[in-house]
Amino acid sequence: MLNPHYVTGFVDGEGCFSVSIGKKRFRVPEVRLYFEIELREDDKPILEEIQKILDCGSIHYLGYERYKKWRPHVKFKVGSYREIKEKIIPFFQKYPLQAKKKKQFELFCQVAEMMERDEHKTLGGIQKISELREVFRKA
Amino acid sequence: MLNPHYVTGFVDGEGCFSVSIGKKRFRVPEVRLYFEIELREDDKPILEEIQKILDCGSIHYLGYERYKKWRPHVKFKVGSYREIKEKIIPFFQKYPLQAKKKKQFELFCQVAEMMERDEHKTLGGIQKISELREVFRKA
Repeated sequence: MLNPHYVTGFVDGEGCFSVSIGKKRFRVPEVRLYFEIELREDDKPILEEIQKILDCGSIHYLGYERYKKWRPHVKFKVGSYREIKEKIIPFFQKYPLQAKKKKQFELFCQVAEMMERDEHKTLGGIQKISELREVFRKA
Repeated sequence: MLNPHYVTGFVDGEGCFSVSIGKKRFRVPEVRLYFEIELREDDKPILEEIQKILDCGSIHYLGYERYKKWRPHVKFKVGSYREIKEKIIPFFQKYPLQAKKKKQFELFCQVAEMMERDEHKTLGGIQKISELREVFRKA
C-alpha cells in the first residue's frame, strides 16, 4: 500500500479539487464538488493504488478520439457528496496539502460545509459560493 | 519539514530525471544528469521546502519573457554529479517512486553507475547510454 503522505504529495502536483455550479434554465443551479486526478493511460496503476488508499471514487478511460495528437488518459474521479465528506475531506485534513493546492482544498471544504447546511440549494447560497470561488481564483 | 514520502509523491507527478548528451563538434559529447522540478512562480515556497529535504540543488526564476502567454515559472535544479550521487539517488532509493517515473529513475541510476566507472567519457560508453535512453523512451 502507498504511504498516505506520498498520496498527498502526488495530489499536490496532479490532483484537482473543484466546485462546479451547473447552469440549467428555469432551475436552481446545481452545486457539486469533484475531486479528480487525470493522468496518461500508462499511469493507470498508480491511480488504482491511490484509489485503494482513498477508498472511494472510480477510474474512467478517456480516449480523446476527437483529438488525434492527444494520448488516451485515465481519470480518477470522486463526485459523490457522501464520499467527498466521509473520505476525501478527512484524508486531506489528516495529511495536509503543502503547495498552492491547499487553497483549492480550503474553498472545497468551505463549500462542503455550506452544503452540509443545505445552503447550496438557495439562490443566496449559490451566489455566495460563486463569489467565494472568484475570491479563491484571484488569490 | 515535509514528510519525505510527500516529496516522493510530489516528484512522481512533477519531477524530471533526465540524461543529457551534449553535442559539440570535434569533441567527445558530454553526458550529464539532471534532476528538475518546474512549477509556476507562485509555487516557489514548495520548491524551497523540497530543497530543504533533498539538501542540494538550486532554484531559478524563469521569466519566459519571449512567450507572452506563459506565466513565469520557477525551477529547482540539481545538475552536479556529486549531489546527484550523494543526495538525489540515495533519497529516491530510500523513498521509492511508485508511478511511471520510476522507469526514468532506473535509467538515471544506470547511467550514474556508468559515470562512476568513467564510461561516459568513451565513445563506446556514450553510444551505450544513447541506446539505453532509447530503450527506456520506448518502454
